[in-house]
Amino acid sequence: MSYFVTGAAGFIGSSLVDRLLARGESVIGFDNLSTGRREFLQNASRNAKFQLVEGDLLDIETLTEAMRGARFVFHLGANADVRFGTERPRQDLEQNTVATFNVLEAMRTNGIKRIAFSSTGSIYGEPTLFPTPEDAPFPVQTSLYGASKLACEGMIAAYCEGFRFHAHIFRFVSVLGERYTHGHVFDFCRALLASPDRLHVLGDGRQRKSYIYVQDCIDAMFLAIEKAQAKVNIFNLGNDEYTDVNGSIEWITHRLGVRPSLTYAGGERGWVGDSPFIFLDTQRIRSLGWAPRLTIREGVLLTVDWLCANRWVFEHSK
Amino acid sequence: MSYFVTGAAGFIGSSLVDRLLARGESVIGFDNLSTGRREFLQNASRNAKFQLVEGDLLDIETLTEAMRGARFVFHLGANADVRFGTERPRQDLEQNTVATFNVLEAMRTNGIKRIAFSSTGSIYGEPTLFPTPEDAPFPVQTSLYGASKLACEGMIAAYCEGFRFHAHIFRFVSVLGERYTHGHVFDFCRALLASPDRLHVLGDGRQRKSYIYVQDCIDAMFLAIEKAQAKVNIFNLGNDEYTDVNGSIEWITHRLGVRPSLTYAGGERGWVGDSPFIFLDTQRIRSLGWAPRLTIREGVLLTVDWLCANRWVFEHSK
Repeated sequence: MSYFVTGAAGFIGSSLVDRLLARGESVIGFDNLSTGRREFLQNASRNAKFQLVEGDLLDIETLTEAMRGARFVFHLGANADVRFGTERPRQDLEQNTVATFNVLEAMRTNGIKRIAFSSTGSIYGEPTLFPTPEDAPFPVQTSLYGASKLACEGMIAAYCEGFRFHAHIFRFVSVLGERYTHGHVFDFCRALLASPDRLHVLGDGRQRKSYIYVQDCIDAMFLAIEKAQAKVNIFNLGNDEYTDVNGSIEWITHRLGVRPSLTYAGGERGWVGDSPFIFLDTQRIRSLGWAPRLTIREGVLLTVDWLCANRWVFEHSK
Repeated sequence: MSYFVTGAAGFIGSSLVDRLLARGESVIGFDNLSTGRREFLQNASRNAKFQLVEGDLLDIETLTEAMRGARFVFHLGANADVRFGTERPRQDLEQNTVATFNVLEAMRTNGIKRIAFSSTGSIYGEPTLFPTPEDAPFPVQTSLYGASKLACEGMIAAYCEGFRFHAHIFRFVSVLGERYTHGHVFDFCRALLASPDRLHVLGDGRQRKSYIYVQDCIDAMFLAIEKAQAKVNIFNLGNDEYTDVNGSIEWITHRLGVRPSLTYAGGERGWVGDSPFIFLDTQRIRSLGWAPRLTIREGVLLTVDWLCANRWVFEHSK
């Protein structure tokens, strides 16, 4: 089968491309290389079953043309950074909401009916129920990023009803692992490798977050796509544990062998719209037989080791 | 205070403009007159405190300029027809999602922080809980219209968190009353006035819907804006009763004095994405002291009488 992967040069996208190719599938990757890294597709590029189309999701003609012949779309391309919404509100609208609309329309033009979509635990806003299940009370959004992913989920579900699409929607906690290129473990490592003596922390360090290892995440997606056959299949993906930011700082500094003095920006939230506690109920995916292989701590340490061995990723990144 | 009303020439918009003017407020109306009717603003136009700006919500420059000096925005301008999403998917994205983003950005440019927004009961998709409360389980969308309103709600809430806006979001059931210009009571009246002997019904006639009279709806909005002071205030607005389509046909035919033979398109839904049962829990708005003055039956009959006396609205309408 031929798969179309948006955001193919990104962290999760390129990891997924490699896994699909390892299964013998054909893959068309689509990426504008704005945050994706061509280096992540080095192995894939040597595979005759892979091709990369450089294009932007906002260019619907190129997108529609590139998708031709595919049977399944993994739509991972997005502005994936929750933090800068208030500085650039149009970015979430365009790169997430409008881009997803374009993906859906390009699928319709090409007669493709199956989509898997990377949503986010941020979609629950500031939940009152922990761990938060997929059918939690109707959330109120707190970030433009979450709002844009909510918009995408809504459109995808409406296309399932209106155009007989089938969708798998995955709400991720923070994803860690090889090729990880943004988020606070990234920021902490970069800062500590440059200045091991001090570390400035957004918020009070007590924000609690959950994480998942990228390969565990891909395992879960493959399993859900294989086993869940409803019109719209929604799954939380995360570990059944969480850690606070201070806890992850301890692991990171210990691994790096540094003892920085810590300063805190203060406040319950790391940034405007930051959720002080993200912890998702993963009963639904676990009931299909999935379990993560790495704990959060193992995922953080693996990520630190990978970053130390691949310091080039700190260049030209935000 | 100066109010800015988008969709000012529409059914609910023009009714709201008249009510604001009756309270002595200044009102800037904004409408592209694509579905709005200049006739609905005849009275308003004679009031020195009213001005109408003809413009499109997708033209952010004109919108931003028109909004200058306002202190409160009622954002009612939208593609308000839930039925045609699959024929024109881009319309819901542009006229609802992107248009709402433009309204929010224009507010930000003008330093306006308060918004009231007309959302919809369709946002609950096909709920499992009746009457459906505001914090119902996280819904799965079934129509592009609902999905676009969900996107709007999400952005509005994120602007409240990110830019210290305050919002009142109203999820309406079907609204009836003077100036009513779309929906099935409109369609039935038009069809029966043209051909009193027969009536074709979408679906099986057993779809259950709730309705609210436009002046009751405006009363509720005024009350909620006055009394509810949270950052994001979400209210269902509807009657505490519902009727099926066959029930409303009986009222309408009796009022018109016609006895048509009925044919049914069949199926549980009137159109793709139609919700077979909409019935909202209105405890939240009732707890502020609101109660509707008209029953559904009274609202339907008043609407039939108004349509019969204003047959010009059937011209040039979809």
